[in-house]
Amino acid sequence: MDYQQFDSLFHPRSIAMVGASPDPANSFMLNIMLKHGFSGKIYPVNSSGSEVLGLKAYASIKEIPDTVDYAFLQVPAKAIIQVIRDCAAKKVKLATVFTAGFGESEIQGRGELERELADAARQGGVRFLGPNCMGLYCPAVHLTFASEFPQESGPVGVLCQSGGNSMQLVRAAAWRGIRFSKLVSYGNAADINESDLMEYFAKDPKTRLIIAYIEGVKEGRRFSDVLRATARVKPVIVLKGGRNEGGAVAALSHTGSLAGSVMVWDSLLKQANVMQVHSIDECVDVALALLFMRPPSSRKTMIVGLGGGATVLAADDCYDAGLVLPPLPEETKQALRKVTREAGKIFKNPVDLSDMFSFPSEVAHSVKVVGSWTGADLLIIHFGLEVGPYVIGLKRVAPLAEAIMGAVREVGKPTALVVHAAYGDDASQAFLKVQRMCVEAGVPIYPSFQRAVSAIGKVISYYQNQ
Amino acid sequence: MDYQQFDSLFHPRSIAMVGASPDPANSFMLNIMLKHGFSGKIYPVNSSGSEVLGLKAYASIKEIPDTVDYAFLQVPAKAIIQVIRDCAAKKVKLATVFTAGFGESEIQGRGELERELADAARQGGVRFLGPNCMGLYCPAVHLTFASEFPQESGPVGVLCQSGGNSMQLVRAAAWRGIRFSKLVSYGNAADINESDLMEYFAKDPKTRLIIAYIEGVKEGRRFSDVLRATARVKPVIVLKGGRNEGGAVAALSHTGSLAGSVMVWDSLLKQANVMQVHSIDECVDVALALLFMRPPSSRKTMIVGLGGGATVLAADDCYDAGLVLPPLPEETKQALRKVTREAGKIFKNPVDLSDMFSFPSEVAHSVKVVGSWTGADLLIIHFGLEVGPYVIGLKRVAPLAEAIMGAVREVGKPTALVVHAAYGDDASQAFLKVQRMCVEAGVPIYPSFQRAVSAIGKVISYYQNQ
Repeated sequence: MDYQQFDSLFHPRSIAMVGASPDPANSFMLNIMLKHGFSGKIYPVNSSGSEVLGLKAYASIKEIPDTVDYAFLQVPAKAIIQVIRDCAAKKVKLATVFTAGFGESEIQGRGELERELADAARQGGVRFLGPNCMGLYCPAVHLTFASEFPQESGPVGVLCQSGGNSMQLVRAAAWRGIRFSKLVSYGNAADINESDLMEYFAKDPKTRLIIAYIEGVKEGRRFSDVLRATARVKPVIVLKGGRNEGGAVAALSHTGSLAGSVMVWDSLLKQANVMQVHSIDECVDVALALLFMRPPSSRKTMIVGLGGGATVLAADDCYDAGLVLPPLPEETKQALRKVTREAGKIFKNPVDLSDMFSFPSEVAHSVKVVGSWTGADLLIIHFGLEVGPYVIGLKRVAPLAEAIMGAVREVGKPTALVVHAAYGDDASQAFLKVQRMCVEAGVPIYPSFQRAVSAIGKVISYYQNQ
Repeated sequence: MDYQQFDSLFHPRSIAMVGASPDPANSFMLNIMLKHGFSGKIYPVNSSGSEVLGLKAYASIKEIPDTVDYAFLQVPAKAIIQVIRDCAAKKVKLATVFTAGFGESEIQGRGELERELADAARQGGVRFLGPNCMGLYCPAVHLTFASEFPQESGPVGVLCQSGGNSMQLVRAAAWRGIRFSKLVSYGNAADINESDLMEYFAKDPKTRLIIAYIEGVKEGRRFSDVLRATARVKPVIVLKGGRNEGGAVAALSHTGSLAGSVMVWDSLLKQANVMQVHSIDECVDVALALLFMRPPSSRKTMIVGLGGGATVLAADDCYDAGLVLPPLPEETKQALRKVTREAGKIFKNPVDLSDMFSFPSEVAHSVKVVGSWTGADLLIIHFGLEVGPYVIGLKRVAPLAEAIMGAVREVGKPTALVVHAAYGDDASQAFLKVQRMCVEAGVPIYPSFQRAVSAIGKVISYYQNQ
């Protein structure tokens, strides 16, 4: 299948929800899709033919008096072959087999059933995602499989073998400002697999960055070729599930995947210049640095923050991540001295503004002074909400964050903001406020210095190897 | 000085706040102390003798018509020698020199001034913390230097060379349930230093666990001996600031510390069986595992959670951290099958309960089934708030968390709860709710699986080497 054909699969104009019944357990997906406002028609299908959430239902997909582009199948595993045949008869182009209990299951005969499903689909000309997956999130047509996914499209394409990880990833990324071209949750990959999807995203002009969560591959050689080719044209981030003995056992039972050797994966990803991450949080961290920061032209970093001890640890983290802190020249120190007095602060690189939380304009001015110094190509600003004599809560945080955002805009250099994670009620509210402000300003925000520099270090290595 | 003498220093009955004036910038510390409700008398001292926050002030500490046990000195650096002499005349036992701009400063003559300060104090018989520090937090006498520090005492003693890191540490730890015997922020350590404090906490019967944030040591040989001796009697966690080239530059300007060789530190800590951490978050993570979990008798771990992909990554993290997942025996799988159907879940070790967020009693029952299996000595439960089709917000989280806490109590095995970090408003509220419930139940809570197992792995290594 070529790019155009896949792309049309992923933009359906009508959906059949097979298995959506008045039972809430079987209609939650329809409910989510309705609330998200899918732009086409939705037709519930269930054996009783009873109405679901106010929509007329059909006893079979074949009875729907309209073309059906996409079918979401939530039916018992044993019924799946017949339903796929119905889809074929109805000329459905793409199905998502949500149902679990196939090749990943220990139940006798379920691996065979998955192969029969694939055969039936192939014979009937139906492409499908799964089984054991959530299917498609495509904001362009307002198609979703989970609540609170963004309505707007963005530059990130995702292939994700896990439904839960898809949801965690989209939401965590969305709250930090990332939007998606589309996400495909593809489960056991009995038909459409990781190579197909990687190829699709490589060609998709709406996708600038590809994220993949993969437990195992179906076509090893092809995937290796596709991944190398893709990484030559677009940045790719891979989170490999089942990296070791423990995860591999789980992956086999989760998506029926053979996890493969960690050494083979590590060397493939390294050779292909693919950014490997080890958690969903890290995945988002790296994506943020790719999307919201122009490529820094070197590892030379300027740190400015509030809190002496935090500053010492920040500098340690910087070097651990392979970033360097060139010494601040005397004229910049002099310029800082004009903004604020030096006692109790650090006027080097890093710069520590100590406890100036209540002096936003001095903080902003200092950020501008050190940010405009040409000796560093990357600026990292940090502060904590629970680090001063008084906790900074929702009310106090806005002036400080606003002043910093203003300075960042003026400096115009690749910049990240670290707001040290807060554990208290007030400070957590303040953190979310700053997060929202960062999203609006297009500034990447990180909850720890270590996470920021680890992600940025990876991204700089990516650019340097490209 | 012996333990008793130090201990009496740290429990003052009266305080002079020297430099506290009606100017809010010079009275915030007095304000914080008053609000916290120090159990003794507080006397502001300022040159004008004007009243501060409703308290009568004195023009000199010598004019206070009472004994003064502890003096908090917030006066210009150049005035410090005279003030210390006044303290000596008044027979003040302990002073905290909050003022910065001594040995850590690049200003000419300030290193010399710090030595003069130490000489004057020694001659006058005044012990002091600092300069350039926050001093004492001692909940037993309701003495604090920052707002929102817990009123109650607990088992953790802290020596911390950074004031900001002290505040970040106490608050982050407090929100997760940790309480302190006392914390000493000691800055440049011109008099009382890390060896004195480590020795004190080693002998302090109220301190069961010691945390140290150290940028440099004053007496290398003595510290090495004291640390080894201390680690033989109590668990010690060390966060070293200035681990590398970057941090060392900052440490010199922060507390005038010579950071020392990272290799020497690493080998000292390893030989002494001291737990080394690299961030304040990790410090709290390790302390939680020490305080809220009986020592697991092996690395054999049972994982049970919600979310297939999250489960795969959890198992990977487990092995990365040196924990192992012995296979679940058939009878336990059978017992699980009686609680809930298997399709779409994983009944191995790890166990994945998939999307059973709305079935708290089944989750609790499953936790009890796998928790009571004797093949593992440690139980880790995990779920995410943004990982299902619907986000779990404040309202929905309580029944799930309550059911899990109940099961944990019943199982009675070393147990940790991981609630994957949330970035959205609703889920963040839910996270804080579960955090509060964990604190009440005495269950250690972690915001990522990686953080949980890394901390627990360190703690098990500590026990095994002890």
